[in-house]
Amino acid sequence: MRALLVDNGEVKLVSNHPAPEVKPGWVLIKPILVGICKTDLELIKGYMNFSGVPGHEFVGVVEAGDENLLGKRVVGEINFACSSCDLCRRGLQKHCPNRSVLGIYNADGAFAEYFTMPKENIHILPEGVSDEQAVFVEPLAASLEILMQAHIKPTWRVMVLGDGKLGLLVTQVLRLTGCDLVLVGKHENKLRIVERMGVKTATLENPPEAEADLVVECTGNPDGYGLAKRMVRPSGIIVAKSTYHQNLELNWSEIVVDEITIIGSRCGPFAPAIRLLERGLIDTESLITARYPFKKVLKAFEHAKGSEAIKILVQIWKE
Amino acid sequence: MRALLVDNGEVKLVSNHPAPEVKPGWVLIKPILVGICKTDLELIKGYMNFSGVPGHEFVGVVEAGDENLLGKRVVGEINFACSSCDLCRRGLQKHCPNRSVLGIYNADGAFAEYFTMPKENIHILPEGVSDEQAVFVEPLAASLEILMQAHIKPTWRVMVLGDGKLGLLVTQVLRLTGCDLVLVGKHENKLRIVERMGVKTATLENPPEAEADLVVECTGNPDGYGLAKRMVRPSGIIVAKSTYHQNLELNWSEIVVDEITIIGSRCGPFAPAIRLLERGLIDTESLITARYPFKKVLKAFEHAKGSEAIKILVQIWKE
Repeated sequence: MRALLVDNGEVKLVSNHPAPEVKPGWVLIKPILVGICKTDLELIKGYMNFSGVPGHEFVGVVEAGDENLLGKRVVGEINFACSSCDLCRRGLQKHCPNRSVLGIYNADGAFAEYFTMPKENIHILPEGVSDEQAVFVEPLAASLEILMQAHIKPTWRVMVLGDGKLGLLVTQVLRLTGCDLVLVGKHENKLRIVERMGVKTATLENPPEAEADLVVECTGNPDGYGLAKRMVRPSGIIVAKSTYHQNLELNWSEIVVDEITIIGSRCGPFAPAIRLLERGLIDTESLITARYPFKKVLKAFEHAKGSEAIKILVQIWKE
Repeated sequence: MRALLVDNGEVKLVSNHPAPEVKPGWVLIKPILVGICKTDLELIKGYMNFSGVPGHEFVGVVEAGDENLLGKRVVGEINFACSSCDLCRRGLQKHCPNRSVLGIYNADGAFAEYFTMPKENIHILPEGVSDEQAVFVEPLAASLEILMQAHIKPTWRVMVLGDGKLGLLVTQVLRLTGCDLVLVGKHENKLRIVERMGVKTATLENPPEAEADLVVECTGNPDGYGLAKRMVRPSGIIVAKSTYHQNLELNWSEIVVDEITIIGSRCGPFAPAIRLLERGLIDTESLITARYPFKKVLKAFEHAKGSEAIKILVQIWKE
């Protein structure tokens, strides 16, 4: 079958990749649309020493493995847990030390004609959610994880740092809480998107003077922490969303004296993400920069590297 | 009057320090017993560029300034807020940017025959709390701050890192929650104290293998964070109590991927600290290494520097 392959820092589209075998308890999925994530760009640069098929933001159709799911349009959670270790038994499957992660770690992903995943990870899509919306479920769930971890009060002053794909989704989710919200970024075209939704914006060079109760750090680089620390009030919260290779040097005593809370935040819940999309509360259309057919996937990846691009989608298969 | 004075990295006992004036809304206090804190040792080494009278762990008697408080045996909260800034109006007086701090920043402290503080900071002691217990109210309140910030469930596995004065008080407070508790330290004599109370102990070299739901980092040095991170489970909490001069270098992505929460924690509530002492639930006697009369305060400070010392008390005045 056709698949995008990352191997030893090289990325290529091949036509002879073996079709996956469907293990017991797993399903075979034929992807329709797949989004390119920043993590995918890092994988082809060597992150996680990944070799295999990338792709974890998908919408597809179940083709085999479960009678009840057959023919259903689905999305799926990307962490495949062992279900038997201490953390899994305590409900922390997402942090299972034996986990594989779709298209990221030890599991082939969705940039292929077919792929497989455990059926307990599957969520069936309601008719009201289009393919173009559904492909945003995974990053939208990661944004909703913030609401799982912190109680954001409607009266709070909240700032989102970084206007990348994740920052724009996080901003849209926080907008729904009624909080006083500012997106701090550096790209005119991206800041305009949330301004049209009634969200205030500011630039990294001139962040708002009033201190925030909570800051979400989505810059993707080590400078983000210092900016977030300057923006948050004493006794406030910094939600950490950025991952990067370098270490970070910080003033620990400042965190103690100012009683700052830092909350690391990764993947989140799919069901509420699907509900928000179905209710039309999240604008995904404005975030789509371009669509490419699968045969032009390498060009799509090139496009995704540009700083003006927001979300680039790849159409693997058309119904 | 007699006072201990820190000036330009020098510390001396003088007899001609001017008695303080009592401002409107403030009271004059005659201290009975004063404890030496690690912060006091740092102040005489130049921390905060402090010059003046140190001392913030005290029990004393009100001598002037308020009819209703006159003659009462009291303790007092150490942060003196402006009451008019944005943070004070939001109830965050402890973090007031214009604050002075008793014996630490812009306010003479308790190692003197008299000192003053705002009357709203005063707590009257019940008879059931002795002077020797009362002098622990301030650090005990700092330990209770952890329970203000995190909901520690009785079924949790909790570790305290560091067996200094604060670590021993924190351990005693957490012991009351019913949680599965281990104090990880390096001083035989200090670990024994909590073992006698039914708390498990371990050494820094051989910390427990099972991961903790929450770790309190009280080591007072930059190595503490790495140890705490190794000891906490994914999605767990690190409470940060250590302050030190150096910066800390850490792996930020690990915090994000493992969804760790870090909570900076400083001063805490006095009223519950007094209640715990009155109920006899905290053993302070075992923490007292020695008592010195005021005239031997310099010797007391020398003693406090030793690693075997726990709490050194100075008797300023005897009823």
